[in-house]
Amino acid sequence: MADRVVVIGADAAGMSAASQALRMSAAKGRSLDVVALERGHWSSYSACGIPYWVAGTVDGGPDALVARTPAEHREKGIDLRMRTEAVSIDLDARTVEYRDYENGDGGSLRYDQLVVATGAEPVRPEVPGSDAAGIHGVQTLDDGATLIERLVRHRPRRAVVVGGGYIGIEMAEAMVVRGLDVTVIDTAPEPMSTLDPDLGRQVHEAMEGMGIEVETETTVEAFETRADGSVRAVFAGGRSYEADVVVLGIGVRPATALAATAGLTLGRYGGLRVDDRLRVDGHDGVWAAGDCVESYDRVTKEWAYVPLGTHANKQGRVLGTNLGGGTAAFPGVVRTAISKVCDLEIARTGLRETDAQDAGLQYLTTTVDSTTRAGYFPGTKPMTIKLLVERSSGRLLGAQIVGRAGSAKRIDALAVALWNEMTVADLAMVDLSYAPPFAPVWDPVLIAARKAAEALDAG
Amino acid sequence: MADRVVVIGADAAGMSAASQALRMSAAKGRSLDVVALERGHWSSYSACGIPYWVAGTVDGGPDALVARTPAEHREKGIDLRMRTEAVSIDLDARTVEYRDYENGDGGSLRYDQLVVATGAEPVRPEVPGSDAAGIHGVQTLDDGATLIERLVRHRPRRAVVVGGGYIGIEMAEAMVVRGLDVTVIDTAPEPMSTLDPDLGRQVHEAMEGMGIEVETETTVEAFETRADGSVRAVFAGGRSYEADVVVLGIGVRPATALAATAGLTLGRYGGLRVDDRLRVDGHDGVWAAGDCVESYDRVTKEWAYVPLGTHANKQGRVLGTNLGGGTAAFPGVVRTAISKVCDLEIARTGLRETDAQDAGLQYLTTTVDSTTRAGYFPGTKPMTIKLLVERSSGRLLGAQIVGRAGSAKRIDALAVALWNEMTVADLAMVDLSYAPPFAPVWDPVLIAARKAAEALDAG
Repeated sequence: MADRVVVIGADAAGMSAASQALRMSAAKGRSLDVVALERGHWSSYSACGIPYWVAGTVDGGPDALVARTPAEHREKGIDLRMRTEAVSIDLDARTVEYRDYENGDGGSLRYDQLVVATGAEPVRPEVPGSDAAGIHGVQTLDDGATLIERLVRHRPRRAVVVGGGYIGIEMAEAMVVRGLDVTVIDTAPEPMSTLDPDLGRQVHEAMEGMGIEVETETTVEAFETRADGSVRAVFAGGRSYEADVVVLGIGVRPATALAATAGLTLGRYGGLRVDDRLRVDGHDGVWAAGDCVESYDRVTKEWAYVPLGTHANKQGRVLGTNLGGGTAAFPGVVRTAISKVCDLEIARTGLRETDAQDAGLQYLTTTVDSTTRAGYFPGTKPMTIKLLVERSSGRLLGAQIVGRAGSAKRIDALAVALWNEMTVADLAMVDLSYAPPFAPVWDPVLIAARKAAEALDAG
Repeated sequence: MADRVVVIGADAAGMSAASQALRMSAAKGRSLDVVALERGHWSSYSACGIPYWVAGTVDGGPDALVARTPAEHREKGIDLRMRTEAVSIDLDARTVEYRDYENGDGGSLRYDQLVVATGAEPVRPEVPGSDAAGIHGVQTLDDGATLIERLVRHRPRRAVVVGGGYIGIEMAEAMVVRGLDVTVIDTAPEPMSTLDPDLGRQVHEAMEGMGIEVETETTVEAFETRADGSVRAVFAGGRSYEADVVVLGIGVRPATALAATAGLTLGRYGGLRVDDRLRVDGHDGVWAAGDCVESYDRVTKEWAYVPLGTHANKQGRVLGTNLGGGTAAFPGVVRTAISKVCDLEIARTGLRETDAQDAGLQYLTTTVDSTTRAGYFPGTKPMTIKLLVERSSGRLLGAQIVGRAGSAKRIDALAVALWNEMTVADLAMVDLSYAPPFAPVWDPVLIAARKAAEALDAG
């Protein structure tokens, strides 16, 4: 009889794992019986695309963001049960109890192998009124659909976005595109606190350039509501910001209540701890991947929580390979991330100054203003690169880029350098591509590395 | 008395060396007397910008391509003598004999340290008529000015470009932009033979899409001339191609006749051989950098000839650091290059199939068609990545990219991976940046690496 695999959660991590496990086990001549439970209405979708769907930038509605539909998964042999929530796990009995929201019934599933891919949930400020109608997280397609329905039905005039990170700035832009007046409220000194504040300043200015009101170093104290229970204003920093709709962009946390209740141990950030095969520590036959797990940070050599689609996909695939009888390892992350607001591109990899301080590292920084193309070439755009370098070793610790079209994806060369623990002196001599339509003869990455190496030499 | 440095050639390599030597020696409290000889009219310019200047894409004439003028160099303390050609070197006496084309006189300069930065010269087909008027190389700004003068004065209608490499395709596009009918004649099966022919095919199609006639596997046999000695047609592959102007794009060779006559030893490709400090092998006090030297290929671990501005700048800087009393090393190249024709972007790093065969390496290839952005994101463009991987070790040997806007600069991440001798299995797990406006959730580089790793596993 085939081993039964139960997968909880049918987004990137869970479905990558399920598909790859079936593919790998078939190649090994083995058989798996894979059941997947998904409480929402969609499978295998791009949560990162939600702001662009809400903005109307992406045509085709939520379906455009779906990489593989439930029907497609079922054709591949996965018994995918939609609108079905796992409500408890019994690790000793190896069973999952579920509830089916379509039929209203429930039941229990025995498993040999369990895959926890429950993802993340938006952090809600723990202040009065945070459950009011009109306050929206944007973590799932269901969340996106609910928000769009509100925008269409209630025609709100004013939006407040709480939090100025990736989701916050992307959602703020989406609201502007939809014609709303938008205020972003953030506790940090500058928005985009995944960058150091000196670069975050450029993001602040770009947002103001779009007409977004940005309130920094401001903490939300309460949500004020109307008689019908819907949000009316956000009270923050001692004043009231009128809001017909509120979007939460203060980040997400691992959706691990189910796992914790079952007795699985959580890490410092509330995520599951897995080994590099994606097995949950200390629990034979239990696996986890995606936004519900913590990841190994290769720079600090500590655990971190980095919920991103790219990791969910890689982890799901590695998990599926191992589950299907193959061998694969997920080697960790270096916290690479990329985004944009209006035409300002934003990217980072590795550590910010605050991360380096937390890790107790002695570092120096170099910031270089350069251009995306040769200075004389039409369409050349400004870009700024900041590098963090360890003083003792000269190795790259982190990089940040802010610039116009053609800037941000250059972070990948820096991510590969960081991954390989290169020194900035070595990086300054790497054979990067050059032609006038693509870079100055000294590529901005090389200039930044050279300046950092010189700063190290100068002590 | 200060050491006298004589620099022959005042473009990127020579002037980077001179400037850096002065900077470094000043920092060390030493004094250098630097004389530079340049036979042309311009210093420190971007030869790579010439096609765009000829096309009219770059405004501002040749001055726009000059990074630093002779006057600026002189202000920095370099005794730069323009229109002055070094005509012989006496290595024993440590003198350089020169001729000054402005004054018509000449003389001899004693040196303590000699920097040979004589650059490259266009290869001319060794066939009848190759010296005819109207046949133009485009290696120097003087070449560019001569060509433009001809285009303006003679208003040619038909251009033939000999050679379909970087210079050839860029010049072909420039001629099209200027309104000429253009034929490109190349001996290879496809243009852009710095790529494998399967990817070169896309370049071929893009060129035809611009209205360029492309004749492959065709060898130029003669240039036919008019009574006044100017070119009238190119005879190639048994037929005659009418041509009012001919541009040579069959590459360049090291301009090392002066050095060879003086007794400096040349390598396999006719370039000077230098150590990683840029000292000419076996000659104390003689240095060389830029298009006149051969470079160490880090992938094949053999010497290669890779004349590019990016190397000339790095080598010049390394040379100058060492000459000025510091310590620096040029670590070699991995043959990274980038270009475009119309809106088709082209890039490579490392080895092509033919290079791997020449090096006796057992390899496999993987080619992946992907997109520059998430498939659902507006403005996403097709891009193709081909990887070469060593069978025994799984290490990346080379990568090629052809695609539309936003494709080619991604070669840098692959160049850094190659530089660090990564395997494709390791590369497939690197934390590259992802957001829908910048990449699919599986970045094309990761997909290509993963497919290559799978192909290796499958044997």
